[in-house]
Amino acid sequence: MMKLYTYYRSQASFRVRIALNLKGLAHDDTYLHLEKGDQFAADYRAVNPQMVVPTLIDGDTRLFQSLAILEYLDEKYPNPPLLPADAAARAWVRGFALINIADSHPLVVPRIRHYLTDDLGLSPDQMTGWIKHWIGAGLAAMEELLADHRESGGFCHGDAPTLADIGLVTQVTPARTFGADTSPYPRVMRVYDTCMAIPAFADAHPSKQPDAE
Amino acid sequence: MMKLYTYYRSQASFRVRIALNLKGLAHDDTYLHLEKGDQFAADYRAVNPQMVVPTLIDGDTRLFQSLAILEYLDEKYPNPPLLPADAAARAWVRGFALINIADSHPLVVPRIRHYLTDDLGLSPDQMTGWIKHWIGAGLAAMEELLADHRESGGFCHGDAPTLADIGLVTQVTPARTFGADTSPYPRVMRVYDTCMAIPAFADAHPSKQPDAE
Repeated sequence: MMKLYTYYRSQASFRVRIALNLKGLAHDDTYLHLEKGDQFAADYRAVNPQMVVPTLIDGDTRLFQSLAILEYLDEKYPNPPLLPADAAARAWVRGFALINIADSHPLVVPRIRHYLTDDLGLSPDQMTGWIKHWIGAGLAAMEELLADHRESGGFCHGDAPTLADIGLVTQVTPARTFGADTSPYPRVMRVYDTCMAIPAFADAHPSKQPDAE
Repeated sequence: MMKLYTYYRSQASFRVRIALNLKGLAHDDTYLHLEKGDQFAADYRAVNPQMVVPTLIDGDTRLFQSLAILEYLDEKYPNPPLLPADAAARAWVRGFALINIADSHPLVVPRIRHYLTDDLGLSPDQMTGWIKHWIGAGLAAMEELLADHRESGGFCHGDAPTLADIGLVTQVTPARTFGADTSPYPRVMRVYDTCMAIPAFADAHPSKQPDAE
């Protein structure tokens, strides 16, 4: 069975949990509490030198970085697919997901929040403003992309979940956690609702995890 | 011919220029000056709603987000490949590249620097400290990964450039621009030197672009 190192609030772990659920892959979980610093322990550093979650172990293969894990799962366990077949559509789906994975989410992870507050002395209001600003910028870009994409509807692309929907869900979840206004993004929220009606997504939600507080 | 919207200093544009060069694909370039705000013009916003570079146009296909573009180019123009054949190796290469593309680089792009200085009032020293801290964290993670990876040597993986090498180069370049110390990362710098001896990499360097200042 695969082994997943995870933290319930980690959006990157959430992405991998969704993909594992969609593909029906069982996994044995090890919980790291990022706010308590479990990721800096020597034994975990040997597993993941970047000291972040998730890490997925599949047999002899040690996988890191959520998008690399999602692509691996899609190559090795192709059903159901997380990418469309056409090269241009695959690029759109990956580009959409990267708005969350590469541009928005890395700005609001614990290590960044700690640096902003502990090293740079940001106030709680400035910290919340930072988070809402960048989560909102990503949501706005997603809304414009969906408005412009003929193949979007219940899902970002086509009639089944892809990497784009996974990235959308993990953009909306922290927006809700931090009280950002999602009303300017009706297309995004329509897709979010479609996805969260699917058990593979709903069961992967941070609030449903055994380590949730 | 493909059309590339680019800015010489953009590390994301640099990545795409390297891939286009490696694959021998000609492109007609449109230069946007990000510090002057060219990316916010209405006509560019219609091309790329996220108002970032690069955007690549291939026939009827409009491509955004550098990693999505690299994957597209590798799928549509497979020679030479930018990913190894084996699923586990592909995941390692993608995960390595994402340390730059998803975790480090998004923290130091112009829009973040502007928010930190203009909205949060960071001093020039704090700004430089921020950049060096996060670029250094990525370089440290890359160094540990290379030390731990049997297939690394002149290149990150195997004997030809992959997405990992592209991400490594665009991690090192801003480190040099901002005067970060690269001496703790000898494996990273060895790969950097191997890559920059290849014209496809060297010719794509920011300093070689027609819009360089």
